Amino acid sequence: MPQLLHLDSSADLSGSVSRSLTARFAAGWSALSPGHDIVRRDLHADMLPHLPTNVLHWAPHLRTETETVPADAEDLQNRLIAELQAADVVLIGAPMYNWSVPSTLKAWIDYIHVPGTTTPFDTATQPFAGKPAVVVSSRGGQYGPGTPDEADDHQVPGLQRVLRVALGMEVHLVIADLTLAPRVAALAPLVAEGAERMARAEATIDELVIQLGG
Amino acid sequence: MPQLLHLDSSADLSGSVSRSLTARFAAGWSALSPGHDIVRRDLHADMLPHLPTNVLHWAPHLRTETETVPADAEDLQNRLIAELQAADVVLIGAPMYNWSVPSTLKAWIDYIHVPGTTTPFDTATQPFAGKPAVVVSSRGGQYGPGTPDEADDHQVPGLQRVLRVALGMEVHLVIADLTLAPRVAALAPLVAEGAERMARAEATIDELVIQLGG
Repeated sequence: MPQLLHLDSSADLSGSVSRSLTARFAAGWSALSPGHDIVRRDLHADMLPHLPTNVLHWAPHLRTETETVPADAEDLQNRLIAELQAADVVLIGAPMYNWSVPSTLKAWIDYIHVPGTTTPFDTATQPFAGKPAVVVSSRGGQYGPGTPDEADDHQVPGLQRVLRVALGMEVHLVIADLTLAPRVAALAPLVAEGAERMARAEATIDELVIQLGG
Repeated sequence: MPQLLHLDSSADLSGSVSRSLTARFAAGWSALSPGHDIVRRDLHADMLPHLPTNVLHWAPHLRTETETVPADAEDLQNRLIAELQAADVVLIGAPMYNWSVPSTLKAWIDYIHVPGTTTPFDTATQPFAGKPAVVVSSRGGQYGPGTPDEADDHQVPGLQRVLRVALGMEVHLVIADLTLAPRVAALAPLVAEGAERMARAEATIDELVIQLGG
């Protein structure tokens, strides 16, 4: 029974572009077969606490004797890592907020990126190597290769650094740029372009459902 | 009476490098005169909630009729912006966690970066233009110009994008690289280099105290 872990982090529960795209993926996944399961974690509706201590950045065997972690935080970290472990495909809704990810998604990253547990430190540990991750990134402006603001994208490259490089996952990007074109006067000439990109993002989602779940 | 707003975000309350450097700045500031005040906000010890709604990304006059914000969140946003407004100098302790800032610091950024209120949108609004900000960035490895991991720094460039470019602040960087050299075997040859850099960071702090508060 192939299992999808479906994460969202948009703070917009009504008109979110990233949520509409992850919902499209999830609907396509469910339609593949009755056995295509989904585990849902909404990082906004059900927020993770900020990391209570930096000791959680280290695998238990790498902590010093004086470094301790509250039991509930350790349990939460273990649960989040187990969810990733159990998933065949991970779907991450990641809107760009102020050139990076929402704090809710950063909190999740800080729980699951653990040298010695999920990423190499003293050993070659990389339990999620090759696991497909679909990252749905929505941005008000545009940050693609060759655009003037390309270097201001600290969202997708930051996620790639963690998911692809550190955890070894197979990252598939779905990018919806220009989502604020209808609202920002300076972007008004790009409204049609934004709509085209959204249509392309939807088509990419449909292809990825088949590729990863079929 | 010159006022310092002193922010920390390290999740390490005992051995933090960024905290030791911001504490050094604060001690130097207090020593300048009895009138050198400090307002303290510890973003880890007293965590901000994640942004409850994306509507807080917009100034009140830019919100649509159906976009509402819980009163307590609006109050918190206003308080955080007023704190910045009242400060003559802003001091920000910013450790690198997973190639970016801690989620606690990202939450603060998401509250105070508000198009139409603190950064231009429909008008040239930029109330913090020219206000000095001392950003103390500590990193386990090294990410300076010309280093192999330079492009993985989504912390300092992300902060610069918000503080310097969007808010117009005068950003002074104090960078302590190689803080994990004593703990990470691969960095062992760089322990002395790390200590030298820490000494240089401390010297920079002392200079900035005089330059900005004297």
